[in-house]
Amino acid sequence: MQVLVMYDIASSRLRLKVAETCLDYGLDRIQFSVFLGDLSEPQRRALIATLQDLIGDEPSKLCILPIPQNAMAAAFTYEQEAAM
Amino acid sequence: MQVLVMYDIASSRLRLKVAETCLDYGLDRIQFSVFLGDLSEPQRRALIATLQDLIGDEPSKLCILPIPQNAMAAAFTYEQEAAM
Repeated sequence: MQVLVMYDIASSRLRLKVAETCLDYGLDRIQFSVFLGDLSEPQRRALIATLQDLIGDEPSKLCILPIPQNAMAAAFTYEQEAAM
Repeated sequence: MQVLVMYDIASSRLRLKVAETCLDYGLDRIQFSVFLGDLSEPQRRALIATLQDLIGDEPSKLCILPIPQNAMAAAFTYEQEAAM
């Protein structure tokens, strides 16, 4: 299944660990705090458990949202690079 | 249709304007830079045009993603409030 992982995390140290975990699971970073990728159901459950363990009681919001496989094809995306 | 709006915007001033625009369109702020809500197709197109105008050539990423009406029901969400 295609999964979006989005988070608000106050601690830079924890934010980095969460981002590294998402990359470890093969997700792509589509925004600074949003990752997208394919996970099996066991992988999705393992990712939830891992992130919950990492986050513990640190102030944060986490959302792991399954989306249809073709959903991103209908997305409007816009990107402006920083001028050099 | 249910729509997720996600962005990375470097400028605080512009980020605030984009957030205010999302709220004006009746979207709910589910994370600092992620909004969710129902939009008609004309509203979705108008929101895209408005956000593109606002952002112009400022460094940013914007994603407006239609998701199924019931998608959030299958989401895993976790929230820890900051300790007082």
